[in-house]
Amino acid sequence: MGNSFGSIFKLTTFGESHGIAIGGVIDGCPSSMSVDFDFIQKQLDRRRPGQSEITTQRKESDKVEFLSGIFEGKTTGTPISFIIKNKDSKSNDYSHLKESFRPSHADFTYQKKYGIRDYRGGGRASARETACRVVAGAIAQQVLATIGVQVSAYVSAVGSVRMNKSYNEINLSFIDNNVLRCPDNKYAEMMRAEIEQLKKEGDTIGGEITVIATGVAPGWGEPVFSKLHAELGKAMLSINAVHAFKYGFGGVDISSSKGSVSNDVIIDESGTTRTNFSGGIQGGISNGNDIYCEVAFKPVATIMKKQESIDLDGNQIELESKGRHDTCVVPRAVPIVESMMALTLTDYYLKSKINKI
Amino acid sequence: MGNSFGSIFKLTTFGESHGIAIGGVIDGCPSSMSVDFDFIQKQLDRRRPGQSEITTQRKESDKVEFLSGIFEGKTTGTPISFIIKNKDSKSNDYSHLKESFRPSHADFTYQKKYGIRDYRGGGRASARETACRVVAGAIAQQVLATIGVQVSAYVSAVGSVRMNKSYNEINLSFIDNNVLRCPDNKYAEMMRAEIEQLKKEGDTIGGEITVIATGVAPGWGEPVFSKLHAELGKAMLSINAVHAFKYGFGGVDISSSKGSVSNDVIIDESGTTRTNFSGGIQGGISNGNDIYCEVAFKPVATIMKKQESIDLDGNQIELESKGRHDTCVVPRAVPIVESMMALTLTDYYLKSKINKI
Amino acid sequence: MGNSFGSIFKLTTFGESHGIAIGGVIDGCPSSMSVDFDFIQKQLDRRRPGQSEITTQRKESDKVEFLSGIFEGKTTGTPISFIIKNKDSKSNDYSHLKESFRPSHADFTYQKKYGIRDYRGGGRASARETACRVVAGAIAQQVLATIGVQVSAYVSAVGSVRMNKSYNEINLSFIDNNVLRCPDNKYAEMMRAEIEQLKKEGDTIGGEITVIATGVAPGWGEPVFSKLHAELGKAMLSINAVHAFKYGFGGVDISSSKGSVSNDVIIDESGTTRTNFSGGIQGGISNGNDIYCEVAFKPVATIMKKQESIDLDGNQIELESKGRHDTCVVPRAVPIVESMMALTLTDYYLKSKINKI
Amino acid sequence: MGNSFGSIFKLTTFGESHGIAIGGVIDGCPSSMSVDFDFIQKQLDRRRPGQSEITTQRKESDKVEFLSGIFEGKTTGTPISFIIKNKDSKSNDYSHLKESFRPSHADFTYQKKYGIRDYRGGGRASARETACRVVAGAIAQQVLATIGVQVSAYVSAVGSVRMNKSYNEINLSFIDNNVLRCPDNKYAEMMRAEIEQLKKEGDTIGGEITVIATGVAPGWGEPVFSKLHAELGKAMLSINAVHAFKYGFGGVDISSSKGSVSNDVIIDESGTTRTNFSGGIQGGISNGNDIYCEVAFKPVATIMKKQESIDLDGNQIELESKGRHDTCVVPRAVPIVESMMALTLTDYYLKSKINKI
Repeated sequence: MGNSFGSIFKLTTFGESHGIAIGGVIDGCPSSMSVDFDFIQKQLDRRRPGQSEITTQRKESDKVEFLSGIFEGKTTGTPISFIIKNKDSKSNDYSHLKESFRPSHADFTYQKKYGIRDYRGGGRASARETACRVVAGAIAQQVLATIGVQVSAYVSAVGSVRMNKSYNEINLSFIDNNVLRCPDNKYAEMMRAEIEQLKKEGDTIGGEITVIATGVAPGWGEPVFSKLHAELGKAMLSINAVHAFKYGFGGVDISSSKGSVSNDVIIDESGTTRTNFSGGIQGGISNGNDIYCEVAFKPVATIMKKQESIDLDGNQIELESKGRHDTCVVPRAVPIVESMMALTLTDYYLKSKINKI
Repeated sequence: MGNSFGSIFKLTTFGESHGIAIGGVIDGCPSSMSVDFDFIQKQLDRRRPGQSEITTQRKESDKVEFLSGIFEGKTTGTPISFIIKNKDSKSNDYSHLKESFRPSHADFTYQKKYGIRDYRGGGRASARETACRVVAGAIAQQVLATIGVQVSAYVSAVGSVRMNKSYNEINLSFIDNNVLRCPDNKYAEMMRAEIEQLKKEGDTIGGEITVIATGVAPGWGEPVFSKLHAELGKAMLSINAVHAFKYGFGGVDISSSKGSVSNDVIIDESGTTRTNFSGGIQGGISNGNDIYCEVAFKPVATIMKKQESIDLDGNQIELESKGRHDTCVVPRAVPIVESMMALTLTDYYLKSKINKI
Repeated sequence: MGNSFGSIFKLTTFGESHGIAIGGVIDGCPSSMSVDFDFIQKQLDRRRPGQSEITTQRKESDKVEFLSGIFEGKTTGTPISFIIKNKDSKSNDYSHLKESFRPSHADFTYQKKYGIRDYRGGGRASARETACRVVAGAIAQQVLATIGVQVSAYVSAVGSVRMNKSYNEINLSFIDNNVLRCPDNKYAEMMRAEIEQLKKEGDTIGGEITVIATGVAPGWGEPVFSKLHAELGKAMLSINAVHAFKYGFGGVDISSSKGSVSNDVIIDESGTTRTNFSGGIQGGISNGNDIYCEVAFKPVATIMKKQESIDLDGNQIELESKGRHDTCVVPRAVPIVESMMALTLTDYYLKSKINKI
Repeated sequence: MGNSFGSIFKLTTFGESHGIAIGGVIDGCPSSMSVDFDFIQKQLDRRRPGQSEITTQRKESDKVEFLSGIFEGKTTGTPISFIIKNKDSKSNDYSHLKESFRPSHADFTYQKKYGIRDYRGGGRASARETACRVVAGAIAQQVLATIGVQVSAYVSAVGSVRMNKSYNEINLSFIDNNVLRCPDNKYAEMMRAEIEQLKKEGDTIGGEITVIATGVAPGWGEPVFSKLHAELGKAMLSINAVHAFKYGFGGVDISSSKGSVSNDVIIDESGTTRTNFSGGIQGGISNGNDIYCEVAFKPVATIMKKQESIDLDGNQIELESKGRHDTCVVPRAVPIVESMMALTLTDYYLKSKINKI
């Protein structure tokens, strides 16, 4: 359980970090849509390890192979399945983990839950799984594009470096101007410096991603438990290492603001609001303004320093990490965050077709 | 759609603020459990309007009536249904809203989504719906109590007043010592002063609730999309006015911390960790330590000041609020937050029974 | 679990035969639809006990009260909830069942599953629950009527009396011409005679209902596991006492027919077929022709004769039925069968809105 | 939508008849179970085309490759994914179908639903998809075997040849003694003769499969809409060409039997009944006796005779089938029926672990 996301546009993923392949199945993609395979691969490449000097050097070409659901370049409405083979999996790097639990990893919890685990590279708990989300998210982005919805994410903070700009002061076309995926080169440089310093120390650092959707019509979302922002929160919090989520209130402390300040006044028939503290959502339903959220990542748990822990028998041990790891995953997580936004919105878009008699 | 929560222990709620009744159905409650009706009513009373001088004076006795699923005081395994009749609903207070949209309310979005709405008191979008969550949450708390799990929440911030204490410095038995539900009387006084000041100004203010679950065994949660903290995030974000969610990292800025600091070292076989930055969850699965989250509320959108808006025809209008409203809902939201935690945990507890062969 | 039906248009029912009330919640009804309350009550009256001399004399007025989801006579898109109070429940009739298990009832299985049961009148397992299906089904029929779909059912067999006519030889407007709900008075008389004879013997008898939907457009249904006829089968088999289901092949033995005979030749662009052995469904998707099914009911298990059984302690006992029961439930089941057809079709109709890009 | 089955033990399948591969994902298989790969392949071989002289000569080795969820021979609790590559797909055989609709096939309905279809060999609507059900069903059978539940199916009728024996007169170990999978060689011979005669005529014929589960404990199943037999009905009706389903009442006409005859008297504490007309299920919940059902198949729609139809433009055409097809699919469907029974039961078995407090 837990390996599916969405109810109408539904993604199920499978696969372990060092198994034969990872992959996924999308059920519910509308038919007759032309698929842009280059865009999918481009998004995968933005997530891929080894893409720049600040990421892990694990080499995975991450080429996706589609097995079904697309005929002569178009979706048929039947399940779109795909696999990405695991190539550069140095499983021996992990043999020392067979009987030990890394701090702040899922080793201990999987062992307790299932009584067994594929310990190689985190197995199912590895962030490698998110490549499948990117494939499906790239298809969801194409569905959204047919109705003019655009999703973009960028790095807004790394460690102590925080870009002091609201999302609407940003030129979204600058996002990929640097390997940090921070659309302001000045901040990007500071972030890079912070990452390089920590890399030298063998340490890791967290950060934050801001994600925006433009072009969403009013009326997407469901009341009560499945509010649009509640599902967005779940979507983002399901990404490895994400620990906090906020929608709206860009650059403002929610708690200390007053209603007279944070209320968004509607100024025209289409629902445009003078301010957008609500992040484009009221009562869980889109109001036609930009949707935006902030997603906070904790530092990567795998550090290049000795750490204490225990083994399967409860003995105290000392662990030293091997393998090739990121100092800061946030730049690589940008397409993942975009994908989870796109998957969530697509599901609600399709639901919005059946509101009224 | 959107009116159900949970997959095994599943709550469906119904009802509008000024209709005949609100209510709910719980499907999947284990059978043969004795029901403590006093505890349910006590939780409802903690949420009830008019309970103290700092809350709205709308008077609702909020007496719950159970219609099914309980026989001779015990759950039977069949759906537990209940209703709470609406009594003190002054619908005339809302007739002026029939053709206008309040700023930062769900009026506009419901109208756009459904083409029709029960405009009285927010209709389905009213926070009155949360009374049903409290009934179901109180039952979930009783399920959890059978295995030693305890859920508690308290107000940790109101406006600019923030209690500078971690959850484990708190005496949870002090929570109801004051109407603020802040377990430190000194902070409670400061919060009360802030609320009273804003009430005079006709304004409103947000705040924050911290919620803790103790006694959760390792192994609750599901991988990938349904991580325990992802569902908790969704649960909390589905509460009216909640805009942000964080788990773990109590009192610490997630982004700027380093892996070498925030990693939680396991010190014994049962999984106890020296620190608990992870908030009791690793890889989406409980690790046996305390689970805790912070839930941020924006200010109530209904303020006692004139505001601009538009009407159904798109004309600019000026709105003035009537009715009886809270300056700060956060103290009344404490049992709601506890309920959403309990509902989420109960669902995962039941799922945890079927992990292994 | 198990108390909900449908995925988009979703009904959840609750309540026990001799509890305070039974009721239901419909989530996902399209908004802005005018509700015909008279039609709902008319369908309830067709199911109601005590409606004619051939049914049980238990008197239930079965008046439905709506609590939410309808505003000024129209659906709002929010959950439609309703209750039917239990009035004439002579619970003392059942006190002898507290510690014994009736043959071919759910007494033993509920006891084994839940370890507890509301033994009064079958509790949750009572066919009284189906009144809630009729309320929801009558609303679903109204949704379908907006697009020209009509659902009708009639009694095609009682015991050994089988009406030798195909559904398209029937005048559907004759169904309610007699209390048997068999549209041919000659057969209706024979059925009535059979029922009266068995009533004298204190015995019971089964029968069969044929149900037809006209006006269904091509393209409703889902491939593979959720084929339209598979869900219809589940819908019908979930009705108390139903033991068999067949779609298409009216008046023909499926097994012994040849492909050259039973293939339905398409004769025009709209998909009209010369014959309709397929029952209006190909590959699980409607083809635009009439949909029809046959639903077989076993005899009522409660007979007015002494029967052997065991009690809670495993002792052999002799049971004698009390209470007021039907000799043949099939005529009263006609609106239930119509309702399950309408609920299923409405769900697929709504899904059909989201097939294509 | 529609490509998943089950709620706890959940199978999602994908793939078209003439695409790259078909496959599936099982989410929710209990962990730590040793997998018997030979048994899985053996079941696939029983379904495989070309296995005997009475089946289609299409050659597919149908070798399954597992990609995830199994580590060192044991299930890990993570999704078990698998693919079966399509090898002997003579797509050219189908080019004539690009613009025409075969009678009683899904060509027309898929085209209407999706506006596009992979016309090669029926695409997604092909019975080739059922190979994936057999893989998952074989794993489900292994889960059930750990608690002593055994599932067996056999051919009980082909065309006009009907074996006049109840399931409990059958020696289930004789099922594979002949290619018909009819455990009585005399009837098997008659069935074979009927098939061979029809093959000569270029015609096709239907039949019936009986399926039995032994060892099911009392208490599996859910009340009301998800009755065990309702889900079994859905499961069976979702198999290609199945048109009718009956549970219990082996060898007896349901409608004409009386309650005094068909009631099953409980004779001991474990719930054993003297007769078993109920097919092991009461009120939708297993009662501890054998579960059995009959599943009826219509004749294969692809016949070797000229047939009328229309093309995409609505013109009348004459069609002649090419390709290699079965005269009677029933013998090959035996493992499919077993699989659907096993998938359904496994889901309910896992649910039965969470009934009581």
